[in-house]
Amino acid sequence: MDKPLLKALAGETVRPAPFWLMRQAGRYLPEYRKLRASAGSFLDLCFSPALAAEVTLQPVRRFGTDAAILFSDILTVPYALGQRVEFVEGRGPVLGPFDPDALEPAGSRLDAVYEAVRLVRASLPENVALIGFAGAPWTVAAYMVEGGSSRDWLQVRRMALGEPERFAGLIDRLTDVTVDHLSAQAEAGAEALQLFDSWAGLLPPAGIRRWCLEPARRIAAALRERHPSVPLILFPRGAAVFAAEFAGTADCVGLDTAADPAWAAGKVQGQAAVQGNLDPMLLVIGGDAMERAARDILSAFRQGPHVFNLGHGVLPMTPPEHVAALRRIVQEAP
Amino acid sequence: MDKPLLKALAGETVRPAPFWLMRQAGRYLPEYRKLRASAGSFLDLCFSPALAAEVTLQPVRRFGTDAAILFSDILTVPYALGQRVEFVEGRGPVLGPFDPDALEPAGSRLDAVYEAVRLVRASLPENVALIGFAGAPWTVAAYMVEGGSSRDWLQVRRMALGEPERFAGLIDRLTDVTVDHLSAQAEAGAEALQLFDSWAGLLPPAGIRRWCLEPARRIAAALRERHPSVPLILFPRGAAVFAAEFAGTADCVGLDTAADPAWAAGKVQGQAAVQGNLDPMLLVIGGDAMERAARDILSAFRQGPHVFNLGHGVLPMTPPEHVAALRRIVQEAP
Repeated sequence: MDKPLLKALAGETVRPAPFWLMRQAGRYLPEYRKLRASAGSFLDLCFSPALAAEVTLQPVRRFGTDAAILFSDILTVPYALGQRVEFVEGRGPVLGPFDPDALEPAGSRLDAVYEAVRLVRASLPENVALIGFAGAPWTVAAYMVEGGSSRDWLQVRRMALGEPERFAGLIDRLTDVTVDHLSAQAEAGAEALQLFDSWAGLLPPAGIRRWCLEPARRIAAALRERHPSVPLILFPRGAAVFAAEFAGTADCVGLDTAADPAWAAGKVQGQAAVQGNLDPMLLVIGGDAMERAARDILSAFRQGPHVFNLGHGVLPMTPPEHVAALRRIVQEAP
Repeated sequence: MDKPLLKALAGETVRPAPFWLMRQAGRYLPEYRKLRASAGSFLDLCFSPALAAEVTLQPVRRFGTDAAILFSDILTVPYALGQRVEFVEGRGPVLGPFDPDALEPAGSRLDAVYEAVRLVRASLPENVALIGFAGAPWTVAAYMVEGGSSRDWLQVRRMALGEPERFAGLIDRLTDVTVDHLSAQAEAGAEALQLFDSWAGLLPPAGIRRWCLEPARRIAAALRERHPSVPLILFPRGAAVFAAEFAGTADCVGLDTAADPAWAAGKVQGQAAVQGNLDPMLLVIGGDAMERAARDILSAFRQGPHVFNLGHGVLPMTPPEHVAALRRIVQEAP
């Protein structure tokens, strides 16, 4: 196993730190925009194996990242369960009404995703690892219940805290589907898996434990059984105070932008690899500000396993040359 | 000094814990909606001393809270500096364009706020303390630069991280104005002061230290000099990982909904009083779920100075009778 990402996820201190970025494929890249223009809807693109594979590979070719992350979307799961999902330009995802008690079986609706995984894996450079992913049950449930993105997420918070039995049914169902979805990606060739819990920070502590940490534990345990050699990265955004608890469950914890690396080096890195956590806005800005912040992160995590990444996804207005510069900074760090 | 809130803020372990709620005055109260309907614009209401005082007192009368918090808005400060500020129904605040280098002197534009403080203080029951407040410089700057609320706050994040010298000018100016504004409230009769940094969590660690913690230190130092007996509460929302650092600066740290009370009891409460942190959604839901969560918080903070509060403001759909029930729960807690 010579891939730097997999070594770091196995607990090795690898230098230079392996490098990839959340949302490294996408709108900020001209080659993506060109392909996107000819691809129909966003979901059509996600479900076209050859196109999704090509988009996945674009940043690997351009920047020489240590990982490819499958180009897909966390809302493929509600779509597979029969909920209407559309991506509306300038507005984000719009989901149809749904009945938590009448979700359909996913069946073969996600097969195109696994085919994309196979295609990417077959064309990756030998040092580059392929990461599969899924939205965490809480975060996927949030979009399902709200019918899209939201400023305050009142409906899903109300359901989680006020109707816990009913909500548990939805979370349990999503937990099972997520295990299957990640497992199928591993079978198709994904060498590491990441669970995105983008909205963990909306919950109070008891909610984070019940709706984020507990499902993450169940998913981790099931995957460990089915795919013992495929490491799992958890990314509970907005819940940095709980990062040490998540670390006990996974091979790696992704840190959000607000997490303090010095704190995480002490509290989290001893239990698991850490991933993160440059502010994506610094990647938009570039120059000295970006370099200083990146070096501070590298320096804080120097003593243990660390995967360099952002604390959130690449922003659409990011100049691609800043990503290339960041890649060099990480490559050449002392 | 017999007021329970002031004892707790001075570091005493007071039981029952003093009780007040962020946004305890406002839209969820029928008596507020009635008064609001006859009061012109939202800013007109903030700048009408008798009406603002009446609104401030409504929840004190209804629930017997241990504190009144002045009814006002953090955007009175940009208004006083000459920026256009409007509150548009269903959309929130809308601010006009502004030039950070050409802000006007606040002059007497905030005098009506201080008059409201005097009126409230004169009519408060003897055990109830009056809290004055201001937005923290980072949070006020965020609204000023974005021209209102925002989903991603890209412009202010970009300015803070990419044009730090220019942004420092704005923050310095807001820091000075905030000191004056809080100080004038103390002179008018406010017995404690709270600094709301609602958007601290948008920044990376170096930004939290520079744009949130450092101005908070300067504000705290200046107020300590001018009003040594008036305690200061800091509320850096979304930056719980830094709560212990904020605690070194203030008499009390307000904890947001995601902060773990058991963690904060160990890391924060030893250095300062803590305030918080029930999820406001639990106040909407009420019943056993609310009671359990409130008791857990009270129990975690039992050994030291604690002010019971929410982790964020009261939500507009909150049933007032749930607030009354919560008040009883805190009053009767063992």
